[in-house]
Amino acid sequence: MEQRLSLVTLGVDDLARSRRFYEQGLGWRASGASTEEVVFFQLGGIALALWSRQALAEDAGVAGSGSGPAAVALAHNVRTKDEVDTLLARAGAVGGRIRRPARETAWGGYVGYFTDPDGHLWEVTWNPAFTLRDDGSVELPP
Amino acid sequence: MEQRLSLVTLGVDDLARSRRFYEQGLGWRASGASTEEVVFFQLGGIALALWSRQALAEDAGVAGSGSGPAAVALAHNVRTKDEVDTLLARAGAVGGRIRRPARETAWGGYVGYFTDPDGHLWEVTWNPAFTLRDDGSVELPP
Repeated sequence: MEQRLSLVTLGVDDLARSRRFYEQGLGWRASGASTEEVVFFQLGGIALALWSRQALAEDAGVAGSGSGPAAVALAHNVRTKDEVDTLLARAGAVGGRIRRPARETAWGGYVGYFTDPDGHLWEVTWNPAFTLRDDGSVELPP
Repeated sequence: MEQRLSLVTLGVDDLARSRRFYEQGLGWRASGASTEEVVFFQLGGIALALWSRQALAEDAGVAGSGSGPAAVALAHNVRTKDEVDTLLARAGAVGGRIRRPARETAWGGYVGYFTDPDGHLWEVTWNPAFTLRDDGSVELPP
């Protein structure tokens, strides 16, 4: 597994409120990749996403809402679908727990989830809409 | 506030177990900045830290152990101590909650914490031991 982080997803209870805090409050600018359901910010070579806490929990196959393990997910994006399967298999073999085997997503990606020994949620993602630079960093649409 | 993320800290229950998972398990290499109490990994232009969940909770001034808000902290490193105070003041003024006003740390830094509207923990840090490149990305010792 390359030593990289691609995206941090924060599970939120009220997307409009959270977006206001980061945009009007802290002065950040959201990427044009943002939709009514998810807001992305380019943070150097990684992305920050704001997404419904409940949707994140369901997507990851972990316990419902609340402040549990679904509140934050760290994503490692890869260049091919095969790499998703390979990485998940490795994580599962070395003490990680597969929470959601890889599957096609509605937005055209291929995603699976595992948790580390402390329950921290990692998403292994092939996302054809996000550019991965040669050095592995992420480039969102402006 | 510049649009950057410097470090992600994962609160862990057993540092040796967690370190084994990321090093022997996933094949990552820890930075020479690591100690018996905290382990750092360089992930592109940011850092990942493994640190005691309890120590993180105490440092941040948030509720004790468990899977609460202290399990993960996102850090934004700045170049001067003054910037720490300025950023914390802004976060507090726009709907964030100051959890720990900035203070000198035992390791020579200057750190304060706030939470966003969903309780996600942000640390605003001046850390003279971590190089901030011109583009704001973090460079750990090898």
